[in-house]
Amino acid sequence: MFLILVYDFGEKRVGKALKICRKYLHWVQNSVFEGEISKANFVKLKKELELLMDPEEDSIILYTFRSQKFSKREIMGLEKGNIDFIL
Amino acid sequence: MFLILVYDFGEKRVGKALKICRKYLHWVQNSVFEGEISKANFVKLKKELELLMDPEEDSIILYTFRSQKFSKREIMGLEKGNIDFIL
Repeated sequence: MFLILVYDFGEKRVGKALKICRKYLHWVQNSVFEGEISKANFVKLKKELELLMDPEEDSIILYTFRSQKFSKREIMGLEKGNIDFIL
Repeated sequence: MFLILVYDFGEKRVGKALKICRKYLHWVQNSVFEGEISKANFVKLKKELELLMDPEEDSIILYTFRSQKFSKREIMGLEKGNIDFIL
């Protein structure tokens, strides 16, 4: 399935959250990740983030699609995640 | 069409960006908005944000879908946008 993940983590945890998400997804922008992911990895990813997060302070939103396809993605301004595709 | 918008604005502009996005969309979480939007309003929304944003510092990502349907949305942790649905 295709996943779009957006997170909002406290400063102390955001570096670790980024590292976890990049294991499974492409980093699109600051706090936005996307990619194809298996059901098993989706469960793993959520478990890892759950262990890390402070549920009183952090938040994650996960949009799942049976197959990729948002019709279109547009970016305005900085494309902070781009380095991910270059590396 | 259905739109998911995620933004990352500098502190000075984020309040205004929130206000603009809430005119057109539901506030789902901290920096995430979604909703049905007409093509005309989509153009207006982007124009308003373009006028506000500092393209060297801010960023916006827009996912558009012909019709609503992410299969599913899951939220972990805080649901910061919820107040929007209550008001």
